[in-house]
Amino acid sequence: MMHEVGIIGASGYTGGELLRLLCHHPSLRVAWATSRQHAGVPAGEVFTSLRDFTRVTFSAPDLTQLPAGVEAVFVALPHVEAMSVVPALLARGLKVVDLSADFRLRDAAVYSRAYGHPHAAPDLLAAAVYGLTEHARERVRAARLVANPGCYPTATLLALLPLARGGALGEFGAIVDAKSGVSGAGRGLKQGSLYCEVNEGLTPYNIGRHRHQPEMEQELTAAAGRGVRLTFAPHLVPLSRGMEATIYLVPPAGVGLREVGALLRESYALEPFVKVLPDGKLPGVRDVAGTNLCRIGCTDDPQGGRLVVVSVIDNLVKGASGQALQNMNLMLGLPETAGLEAPGLFP
Amino acid sequence: MMHEVGIIGASGYTGGELLRLLCHHPSLRVAWATSRQHAGVPAGEVFTSLRDFTRVTFSAPDLTQLPAGVEAVFVALPHVEAMSVVPALLARGLKVVDLSADFRLRDAAVYSRAYGHPHAAPDLLAAAVYGLTEHARERVRAARLVANPGCYPTATLLALLPLARGGALGEFGAIVDAKSGVSGAGRGLKQGSLYCEVNEGLTPYNIGRHRHQPEMEQELTAAAGRGVRLTFAPHLVPLSRGMEATIYLVPPAGVGLREVGALLRESYALEPFVKVLPDGKLPGVRDVAGTNLCRIGCTDDPQGGRLVVVSVIDNLVKGASGQALQNMNLMLGLPETAGLEAPGLFP
Amino acid sequence: MMHEVGIIGASGYTGGELLRLLCHHPSLRVAWATSRQHAGVPAGEVFTSLRDFTRVTFSAPDLTQLPAGVEAVFVALPHVEAMSVVPALLARGLKVVDLSADFRLRDAAVYSRAYGHPHAAPDLLAAAVYGLTEHARERVRAARLVANPGCYPTATLLALLPLARGGALGEFGAIVDAKSGVSGAGRGLKQGSLYCEVNEGLTPYNIGRHRHQPEMEQELTAAAGRGVRLTFAPHLVPLSRGMEATIYLVPPAGVGLREVGALLRESYALEPFVKVLPDGKLPGVRDVAGTNLCRIGCTDDPQGGRLVVVSVIDNLVKGASGQALQNMNLMLGLPETAGLEAPGLFP
Amino acid sequence: MMHEVGIIGASGYTGGELLRLLCHHPSLRVAWATSRQHAGVPAGEVFTSLRDFTRVTFSAPDLTQLPAGVEAVFVALPHVEAMSVVPALLARGLKVVDLSADFRLRDAAVYSRAYGHPHAAPDLLAAAVYGLTEHARERVRAARLVANPGCYPTATLLALLPLARGGALGEFGAIVDAKSGVSGAGRGLKQGSLYCEVNEGLTPYNIGRHRHQPEMEQELTAAAGRGVRLTFAPHLVPLSRGMEATIYLVPPAGVGLREVGALLRESYALEPFVKVLPDGKLPGVRDVAGTNLCRIGCTDDPQGGRLVVVSVIDNLVKGASGQALQNMNLMLGLPETAGLEAPGLFP
Repeated sequence: MMHEVGIIGASGYTGGELLRLLCHHPSLRVAWATSRQHAGVPAGEVFTSLRDFTRVTFSAPDLTQLPAGVEAVFVALPHVEAMSVVPALLARGLKVVDLSADFRLRDAAVYSRAYGHPHAAPDLLAAAVYGLTEHARERVRAARLVANPGCYPTATLLALLPLARGGALGEFGAIVDAKSGVSGAGRGLKQGSLYCEVNEGLTPYNIGRHRHQPEMEQELTAAAGRGVRLTFAPHLVPLSRGMEATIYLVPPAGVGLREVGALLRESYALEPFVKVLPDGKLPGVRDVAGTNLCRIGCTDDPQGGRLVVVSVIDNLVKGASGQALQNMNLMLGLPETAGLEAPGLFP
Repeated sequence: MMHEVGIIGASGYTGGELLRLLCHHPSLRVAWATSRQHAGVPAGEVFTSLRDFTRVTFSAPDLTQLPAGVEAVFVALPHVEAMSVVPALLARGLKVVDLSADFRLRDAAVYSRAYGHPHAAPDLLAAAVYGLTEHARERVRAARLVANPGCYPTATLLALLPLARGGALGEFGAIVDAKSGVSGAGRGLKQGSLYCEVNEGLTPYNIGRHRHQPEMEQELTAAAGRGVRLTFAPHLVPLSRGMEATIYLVPPAGVGLREVGALLRESYALEPFVKVLPDGKLPGVRDVAGTNLCRIGCTDDPQGGRLVVVSVIDNLVKGASGQALQNMNLMLGLPETAGLEAPGLFP
Repeated sequence: MMHEVGIIGASGYTGGELLRLLCHHPSLRVAWATSRQHAGVPAGEVFTSLRDFTRVTFSAPDLTQLPAGVEAVFVALPHVEAMSVVPALLARGLKVVDLSADFRLRDAAVYSRAYGHPHAAPDLLAAAVYGLTEHARERVRAARLVANPGCYPTATLLALLPLARGGALGEFGAIVDAKSGVSGAGRGLKQGSLYCEVNEGLTPYNIGRHRHQPEMEQELTAAAGRGVRLTFAPHLVPLSRGMEATIYLVPPAGVGLREVGALLRESYALEPFVKVLPDGKLPGVRDVAGTNLCRIGCTDDPQGGRLVVVSVIDNLVKGASGQALQNMNLMLGLPETAGLEAPGLFP
Repeated sequence: MMHEVGIIGASGYTGGELLRLLCHHPSLRVAWATSRQHAGVPAGEVFTSLRDFTRVTFSAPDLTQLPAGVEAVFVALPHVEAMSVVPALLARGLKVVDLSADFRLRDAAVYSRAYGHPHAAPDLLAAAVYGLTEHARERVRAARLVANPGCYPTATLLALLPLARGGALGEFGAIVDAKSGVSGAGRGLKQGSLYCEVNEGLTPYNIGRHRHQPEMEQELTAAAGRGVRLTFAPHLVPLSRGMEATIYLVPPAGVGLREVGALLRESYALEPFVKVLPDGKLPGVRDVAGTNLCRIGCTDDPQGGRLVVVSVIDNLVKGASGQALQNMNLMLGLPETAGLEAPGLFP
């Protein structure tokens, strides 16, 4: 049986990635995809790589035109815009996966500090499920509104949550040196996203002040049962897709590489999308590009006596649209991996 | 029913691409994959993007160890090496798709001039089918040995063969300015393939003297019923995958953009993998990356009075492993598009 | 003795390149650099690579504030904007090198067709010198207004003008397949200039319809003494700097590779910035990146019987700011090569 | 007065960079440049970007052919090879800057552990000066043998030495997350340096085990007067040139951002090649590409309570050939900045 879904804000990179993943999904069909800028234009002309693969034509984002059969909607709008449309979608009985930041933080005050805007629908925050799927599977299954995690939090939390729960973070907490491909900045027009600004460059930005940090703290605190000291340092690197987090730990006495590796492997032994390498082996972003995988490796540091955990994802897939689809699959009672099994491209 | 296939020379880029395409093929299973350099190593360690997707471990290229159930073999060896192994494969009753240049030229003398080496199995040349699938479908279906076309010839001939047949090339023939991504040069160690040599560069090479030219001339002559003047100018561009051919024509009187567009559209109207754009629209390599598609567009040149046809492929897919699989599907009686339907990645 | 110069529109890529080239110029000092967007900001904050190299702070583009000592001005504004400011500069007795297209075409009607805007100062067109330096040296020396050529015309005309003059183009004229790095599109915000749109792509655009074509036709016609058939096909390639033109010729009887090579070598034997390779050798864009050089090579095409000439420049240097400085040096009576002698970076 | 110098091993990337920097050096002239592979070939054919800029032809590395006038030599050979040639150079009375690792470590046992090879000239280790110029200026001036620092140590130590000396590192020492462009791996043929392996990738490697680590520990220990805990984590990023070190600190009580910034600014206030940004501002690699600069910025981390220092260099200039020239200038009594003043390219 096919389920019909909609995508609101479908002409950005995460929208396009949803369209790609849904081209051959066995049970989902895109019945509605909106784009203010490209209303009336076939999606295959806005994403020329999808020409002949999708028959969708973009619509204006007018909820009154939403086709009757649509059961669920992906919201791929920028933050602030998303929270203005989600309540109406829920009111119509639709299931929603929101890819923006608007429903990720449980505390509206934290949201408004981080995003510089009061929250428009604070009453929905308690019901929204933070959709880091591997750590929220049953709640996602039952959810009407899933807040899809940010890309940096996905890469970081998949590595850190098992350690926070297992008591392996200690007083030190963690230092996260994260590197992101450019698609994470979206398809909007910014000087910093121009080819000539990014190419042959490498730039740290917003160290200690990135908007994704509160989301990581919220989840780490919940997992550890106490606050976790977190230093988060993002960098922009010249690649289209891919995100790597190099995480530095000083675990408490008695916890070493073996224990950290074991905690990770136990957590993810049965997971289809999180793969932990043998201790001492580290992944790179090419190992996950184009897939919904998170790969994690850890190693020790003989001289400094610290541990290092490396986590890689494709920021557009597990860091955005792939995880959104993984969540949607669960919400609709479908196999979690449907539409997400293909290996990535190399080279 | 699953068919078992082998890949000889599986640790190069075209071998890896075959492994990727076969990961989820509905009817083919890789039962044997050889690599002299990596014998005994799991394919997922040589191609870390395939870890957890393939269970293949590389074998030494020892034909006596070929598993009994294997029906057909992809040969992904360099030229000269390929022709030393193909006869033995055929002698065992195996079907063979050879991705090298060794069986593409019908005339052994032309081969030895182009490749600087006498042909080791000239008696097989007559039986080998030049596997530009859309123009050889029935012969491929019946073939025991398919010579898979080169990447440059695939992009060029898909655009030019309908025009050669339709009498649209005229005395002028064609000038082909072709641009290739670096994976076309293979995974071998050459200074010219190093990152620092290619990055931020753009280099013409072997203009008028490229080894793929005789293959194009052979097929064009057969299609036109006479020799076709061809200027072929390859360039190396800094991208991993992708090939574009910009083709310049001076068609005979009475043939214009409309006629050229019509010839192309008629030829490919029903083809799953060759797509002709509306006249005046031109494709780019991002429109095909990761897919088995060839996209073709044409336009006119108001001042110069010439016509321009643009053809793009992914050199590793339609230009190599994808077309090889398309041919193998036919040879084994499977649906031609099996394993080749996924859209490409963007960005 | 130091001359003071100004740069109007200094915060784009060509403006930044002028600032770079002038950092250590022996006889020119930037006394005024305007940027509407960044007025009041040190140039070293807008171009962080120039921090500590330049002391310039951007001014608002208010001519009444132009410092008294300034003798000459580079205008690095977009077309249409440039022609609104150039007359006032000339009226103040300043020498002007305009990097826009506004004064390149001698015929105002051709301009308005190409740029979709009537010309605001048609009376200046006759006096403006088209500053392809090697072909206009004496007129540039005497000029008050130099129209700096476009990047595509520079690469193309340096290769073709000696052949047009020498009667080597014939009836065929030329087909120019040109490839440009992304900086040629400027620093303005366009979706097509985003990293994720350009990276791993290669796109033909505006074939037969590019705005630089009339400028090439004007100069070729003047050199040949008759119209020259020109097919011009630009492509965008994923590199920051660099431009390559692959030019296809069918020369008249009696003209071959040797004659074409000789015409080029004779024309440029004494030129500091145009270098012709031995016949059969072809340059790549890495051979000129960061320099004011144009390198030209030619080869024949044994099968097709055509000739191929390859011309490469750095689109921001010889294709824009470097040639502008070369012209300005002449206009101010300075050595032509001042500030332009450094070799390029590799890798 | 011109001094004549030689370059041994001149056809790799650091050799080519020396040739570039010396093209227009006011007081140095390359009289001898060796390349085993390219003996007899003009340097301008091996580095086509230097054609017309250098008249050097490569020689075989035969010391008996060293021209009489040569006073000093750059050794740009791989480690182990360098130490087999340096003693003979010194014996001839030549001054030597060795760009390899062979004379950087004072303790031969540490060398042989790190490089897996016994040291061939341990008696020279005491006399060799570790040439991190800003921290060894007077000793460099007097040296006969300068061991030019590695690229990672240069970026790291320029940031950390003032803090080690000023007591700002504390018990924590430092965590260094370093990212390097590909040219740091040299021009040798390795699969990991191929375009298709690096492009669109990002890979951590040798974390806690990199060969440059002992060199950093040696210098930090000397500066701090005690051992310094150092975690060093290198990453390969897809760019040709550039190196960034993101350094994490937990300074002792009473030391904060202001103190760390002040220590750095005091150390480098008068330095021509080390530039410290205002607190809170961070540099990127594009700010130094092509120059001999090291730029350093620092910021705090409000949530984690740690400090972050970012240091960027061009790995081929300040990280190799530029610093080698800076040292050579001093050894020959020339102005330290000679030949090193040009700004970098952007974009």
